Amino acid sequence: MKIALAQLNFHIGNFESNTQKIIDRIHEARSSGVDLIVFPELAVTGYPPRDFLEFNDFISRSEKAVNQIAAHCTDVAAIVGAPSRNQIGKGKPLFNTAWFLANGKVTKLIHKTLLPNYDIFDEYRYFEPNKTFELVECQGKKIALTICEDLWNVDENPLYYIDPMTELAKLKPDLIINIAASPFHYRQAETRLDVLRQNASKYSLPLFYVNHIGSQTELIFDGGSLVLDSKGDLVAKLADFEEDFQIFDTENLLSNPDLTAPIFTNPIESIHDALLVGIKNYFAKLGFTKAILGLSGGIDSAVTLALAAKALGAENVLALLMPSQFSSDHSISDSVQLANNLGVSYHKIGISEPYSNFEEVLKPYFQGLPFGLAEENLQARIRGVLLMAFSNKFGHILLNTSNKSEAAVGYGTLYGDMNGGLSVLGDVYKTQVFALARFINRDMEIIPENIITKPPSAELRPDQKDSDSLPDYDILDQILTLYIEERKGPDEIIAAGFDAFTVNRVLKMVNLSEHKRYQTPPILRVSPKAFGQGRRMPIVAKYLN
Amino acid sequence: MKIALAQLNFHIGNFESNTQKIIDRIHEARSSGVDLIVFPELAVTGYPPRDFLEFNDFISRSEKAVNQIAAHCTDVAAIVGAPSRNQIGKGKPLFNTAWFLANGKVTKLIHKTLLPNYDIFDEYRYFEPNKTFELVECQGKKIALTICEDLWNVDENPLYYIDPMTELAKLKPDLIINIAASPFHYRQAETRLDVLRQNASKYSLPLFYVNHIGSQTELIFDGGSLVLDSKGDLVAKLADFEEDFQIFDTENLLSNPDLTAPIFTNPIESIHDALLVGIKNYFAKLGFTKAILGLSGGIDSAVTLALAAKALGAENVLALLMPSQFSSDHSISDSVQLANNLGVSYHKIGISEPYSNFEEVLKPYFQGLPFGLAEENLQARIRGVLLMAFSNKFGHILLNTSNKSEAAVGYGTLYGDMNGGLSVLGDVYKTQVFALARFINRDMEIIPENIITKPPSAELRPDQKDSDSLPDYDILDQILTLYIEERKGPDEIIAAGFDAFTVNRVLKMVNLSEHKRYQTPPILRVSPKAFGQGRRMPIVAKYLN
Repeated sequence: MKIALAQLNFHIGNFESNTQKIIDRIHEARSSGVDLIVFPELAVTGYPPRDFLEFNDFISRSEKAVNQIAAHCTDVAAIVGAPSRNQIGKGKPLFNTAWFLANGKVTKLIHKTLLPNYDIFDEYRYFEPNKTFELVECQGKKIALTICEDLWNVDENPLYYIDPMTELAKLKPDLIINIAASPFHYRQAETRLDVLRQNASKYSLPLFYVNHIGSQTELIFDGGSLVLDSKGDLVAKLADFEEDFQIFDTENLLSNPDLTAPIFTNPIESIHDALLVGIKNYFAKLGFTKAILGLSGGIDSAVTLALAAKALGAENVLALLMPSQFSSDHSISDSVQLANNLGVSYHKIGISEPYSNFEEVLKPYFQGLPFGLAEENLQARIRGVLLMAFSNKFGHILLNTSNKSEAAVGYGTLYGDMNGGLSVLGDVYKTQVFALARFINRDMEIIPENIITKPPSAELRPDQKDSDSLPDYDILDQILTLYIEERKGPDEIIAAGFDAFTVNRVLKMVNLSEHKRYQTPPILRVSPKAFGQGRRMPIVAKYLN
Repeated sequence: MKIALAQLNFHIGNFESNTQKIIDRIHEARSSGVDLIVFPELAVTGYPPRDFLEFNDFISRSEKAVNQIAAHCTDVAAIVGAPSRNQIGKGKPLFNTAWFLANGKVTKLIHKTLLPNYDIFDEYRYFEPNKTFELVECQGKKIALTICEDLWNVDENPLYYIDPMTELAKLKPDLIINIAASPFHYRQAETRLDVLRQNASKYSLPLFYVNHIGSQTELIFDGGSLVLDSKGDLVAKLADFEEDFQIFDTENLLSNPDLTAPIFTNPIESIHDALLVGIKNYFAKLGFTKAILGLSGGIDSAVTLALAAKALGAENVLALLMPSQFSSDHSISDSVQLANNLGVSYHKIGISEPYSNFEEVLKPYFQGLPFGLAEENLQARIRGVLLMAFSNKFGHILLNTSNKSEAAVGYGTLYGDMNGGLSVLGDVYKTQVFALARFINRDMEIIPENIITKPPSAELRPDQKDSDSLPDYDILDQILTLYIEERKGPDEIIAAGFDAFTVNRVLKMVNLSEHKRYQTPPILRVSPKAFGQGRRMPIVAKYLN
């Protein structure tokens, strides 16, 4: 049997374009003699459709699209992910379904059994889990058809009571197909391969796995669809971060020893590539082309600018340099050099005048009070106002340049430098931002060396350095990783060798700045635990603060 | 048997104060001869603890607190809600548990069976559902001990396959206890009473129900704990929106016919009271006392100011009047009158100067382009900068004054009037804001009549009216309610009698402004479907837009 894997970029709710994309590939498959073409999980709606799934109208449009697709499945069968209605009369109103289409119609529905409901996943919010098991037949082959998480119950302490493959294996399938929507983070490709290997080898069955590519707001899908033979050895891997379409013959699956190497030797490279996809798709799917950002002379805005120029084209990016009395000369000269290196246009607009003007207006009320946080934030907010004025006037999307370390400890100004339509580096720790800069400079100096080597500073008061109020970033990022990614408590972090005073102070800063993170832009997710929908915290809590 | 219901206000993660509050009531109960005192669901941690539940340290502190509480349970038993660890070796790592404490120790754990995972609820993110059923004995009485949602599977098309009361009824209990964390919305009290009535009368058992009061960020708990007799008639109702503690004798439950009337005759009154609790608790739990807001002369800021003054005390609220060249005279005079009526301090700070200054700075780039959205937003953002300067300088929390209608259609400026630590009216449609103003004025004119009767305007350009760019609010709010609360699609809304062009335009506006709502402050939830964590939408989607 010839199976095609269609690793495509879908757009949530865009039934017209998703359907057309699927139909085009079905025709391509048929003309290549393919027996069965496989599309990813919830391909028809895009993933994740989130609460649009609660709209009857949305589900009806999806059903209509599936039927339209089915009509094209003549002389070729297809598996397409889309929601289906729960007709049982109890439980959640929908299933997350793999629709089997053949002979011009829908011939079978296989529902997802294991519904991820953790981190960024909310599937039990919408879907009833499947409870009955059957195989799908195609060209005399019996297929164990599974959906993403269905293959992931492989832990020693499994998250789910039921294991779909255990049930399906009893029915003696010839092969496993898994349709997925498995978002990227910098460790995910390794884990995914490991999980799929375990399934193929445990059941001695070849495995065909197809994933989404492209991003949907904060979630980036890296593709990397896989074919494994019945020993669990890799036969093929589809492209990372690009659409791909490949055809395989089930009678002729040869493992490819070249593919046994780790998928990403350098997680920083994978983060770099993922962020490009994230930026590109955010703009394309919203119908925008132009970005603006504030270029401070620091490393975060420098890396963001380099990524934006690469993702959108230098001609589509505008940088504003907005020095204050506290800005050092090198902030301007470094920024100018970076913009020139990238071929990005920039304007230099000093903020001293608006700042003095606000000072004047506020004088009657602030008189006699020392310069402090209010005045620091005022500068950041004036910059925010200028950037948004350009954004509103010319249709740029403002890119936020905050990194994960400062987002974590609340080192940023709400309605100032925390503004933006999309946060590019909000899931990248400061130490990783440095590594990204080095990676961007791997062949030539794009980001001026001085931007990478000078001590980080917000430059909001005289001679300010980040290290005045924060621990060194290499210490800070380790503590943050233990707290945010690993969810360790203070005692465990201290036991790992960090100073108790510092640990308690950092954890308190993280918890006290929850109200700020509540209002940050969507953050491109590249780690296993990003701020945003994957980390849900109460604001008024009193815990470690 | 004497049962006490302890309807208390807990603080998420504040184990010290929650524990002390529980222990104090246990002592009070014992000295009143109570046999069993009942506290709400997850009382020990506060509800909802959200992702703090993923921290081992957090769970350990909760366990320690439960054991500390148990030690005080001598000569009196207690039921306390707190998480417990799943020891089974599969499934989610926790249970949502009612801990039965007696003789100075933990004697039984009853886990929640039905885990709400919709709207604002995420319980299946953390908890494994219970699968085994047993009663709890106390003073010879057999208790069907249930947790909140466990009693809610009463629909004709039930959301869950298992019904805990069906199972427990087989074991012949003498009474039902339900510990809950059931947040307020303006229809919830009626539904809740109906659900409890159905349970009591179906099983012919008296029912004791205890709820939280107080708010946690956006969620407001109204209390209103209930006792029903075995016919389903109301015996008692604890206070709305206040802590309460009442003792009942299971041998002497007399239904009270005075309680058969609807709980809230006026939903606007209940929203009013809920918002006061929401404001009060947000400040108290964060340790703040002072609020600031921008007073525009419009109805939204007027109602917000009146609520804030009532919740926090007039002396703790500061209003800024920030007229521009487009502000009408009455905007100032009405605002001054309102501030005086309330006894609230205000400053008048014109924004013409900062505005001209920004215009000057932007002139080289904006030259020759007409006045537009950028200039309108600039005014709103200058006001935002001024408010945040006061907030940062003097420690006020900025209250956001946007209503639900404008939040829905994106009629507001990000980093301008959309700023704030808390949105007071973000779940209150404009037509409801008018009703709230009338309610606030029910005994005397607090909000000047002119604020209520003049046509709504953002006053960001000459002679602007909301009705220039939006349908009339009575039409708009009906369309929005059908789309947001009822989740109807365009065809259904048009079929309900609304103009097709208007419907499509409104729905498009709602979907296109998802990126704005992503960055709004937490919104006090008073409706069955509020913006925020209860309504989760993708930003880049292409559906109805």
